[in-house]
Amino acid sequence: MTEHTYKQFDADLEELRSGVLAMGGLVEQQFELAIAALEDAGLQDAEDHVSVNEEQVNRLQVAIDQQCSQIIARRQPTAVDLRLILAVTKVVNDLERIGDEVKKIARKAAGTQGDERLTRVRRFQVARTARSASRMTRTALDAFARLDLEAAAEVIDRDEEIDAEFHAVLRQLVSYMMEDPRTIGPAVEMVFIAKSIERIGDHAKNVAEAVVQGVKGKDVRHASAAEVRAELSGP
Amino acid sequence: MTEHTYKQFDADLEELRSGVLAMGGLVEQQFELAIAALEDAGLQDAEDHVSVNEEQVNRLQVAIDQQCSQIIARRQPTAVDLRLILAVTKVVNDLERIGDEVKKIARKAAGTQGDERLTRVRRFQVARTARSASRMTRTALDAFARLDLEAAAEVIDRDEEIDAEFHAVLRQLVSYMMEDPRTIGPAVEMVFIAKSIERIGDHAKNVAEAVVQGVKGKDVRHASAAEVRAELSGP
Repeated sequence: MTEHTYKQFDADLEELRSGVLAMGGLVEQQFELAIAALEDAGLQDAEDHVSVNEEQVNRLQVAIDQQCSQIIARRQPTAVDLRLILAVTKVVNDLERIGDEVKKIARKAAGTQGDERLTRVRRFQVARTARSASRMTRTALDAFARLDLEAAAEVIDRDEEIDAEFHAVLRQLVSYMMEDPRTIGPAVEMVFIAKSIERIGDHAKNVAEAVVQGVKGKDVRHASAAEVRAELSGP
Repeated sequence: MTEHTYKQFDADLEELRSGVLAMGGLVEQQFELAIAALEDAGLQDAEDHVSVNEEQVNRLQVAIDQQCSQIIARRQPTAVDLRLILAVTKVVNDLERIGDEVKKIARKAAGTQGDERLTRVRRFQVARTARSASRMTRTALDAFARLDLEAAAEVIDRDEEIDAEFHAVLRQLVSYMMEDPRTIGPAVEMVFIAKSIERIGDHAKNVAEAVVQGVKGKDVRHASAAEVRAELSGP
């Protein structure tokens, strides 16, 4: 590339970056509403707000994906430049899925009004796990925005914590169901909410892995957190 | 591109195509083992076989993704050629996720040995839904192999059926749990199996949508099945 096309390419990258961060900002907003719905089921309209955001998220995904194709076709980037563009297509894919899961959480939160104990699980344990997943998503976006590998490694590490929290919530819900079969309906809904949160952790991890691959050219999707850290501390 | 590079590009595409179909073949094998485990929990070693396949699937995903980047960097394809390469990266991503869900099904199948009625749900209803999802995956792969838009549309249509079967299984499981709380543990495991099957349907649909986008250049990810058909019957 000539210096001129390099400058154009940098401008393209910057535009992609803003698009991804705008999409991330919408998903974070959705997340806040969903968590509020978990903490206090009185927020019945969370689902409507979340749905409005989701359409914008979907439109941004389609637009950014198109921009990526156009940039590849026009600038014909290679090596790290190409890797970064391909990383963007992965990141927007996972961001869109996070938005989907958040929408499911907001929709189901209203259906889990049951007895006192279930409400407590929802307002405290489940909402707390959702907060962890939301922070993880934000850190993954920061890792993308600054191409910060340390932040990416932190996200990859944290996925296991979310999994552990998910299993703790699950055990609690199963024991309540056994003690009082009347809670089974809402408790099963809550199982799905917990599952959505666990999946968000997976998607945030995918975003972090895409950042690592974009920057280092190393595919770490099937590596353990320790292997990723070893990779990052290498040359 | 010159005629020479076109020929090279066609050879590249053909190699990608074989790689994706090899990966698809492994996932289909895994699927057969998982369904066998659902139909007869005696197949305790299904999980081991599935895990062996999964490593191969993961390796293929990483290798094909790398090939895609190299082809883009080397041949600098544009328009439909570039779209097809980008579609391949999406297809392998979803295929890998299908493999993941299949592995979870095989692992959990052994944990759902409960009473007579639950066993019946697993061996008949759940296994049948898994067969539908497996057929859907195969049709999506056929759509990819032959760039067959009619097959792609069929997959996109069928996703709703899988969702309906999932909800029927779920209702059945919840009613058994309420009637006999001793079934709650294994029934919750079965809920996760059903959820994995439902997700496989989503991933197969993603594969079909990637095929449509690759061929027609139209992003149909957020379109309804009817809109997709209208699009396909257009010019």
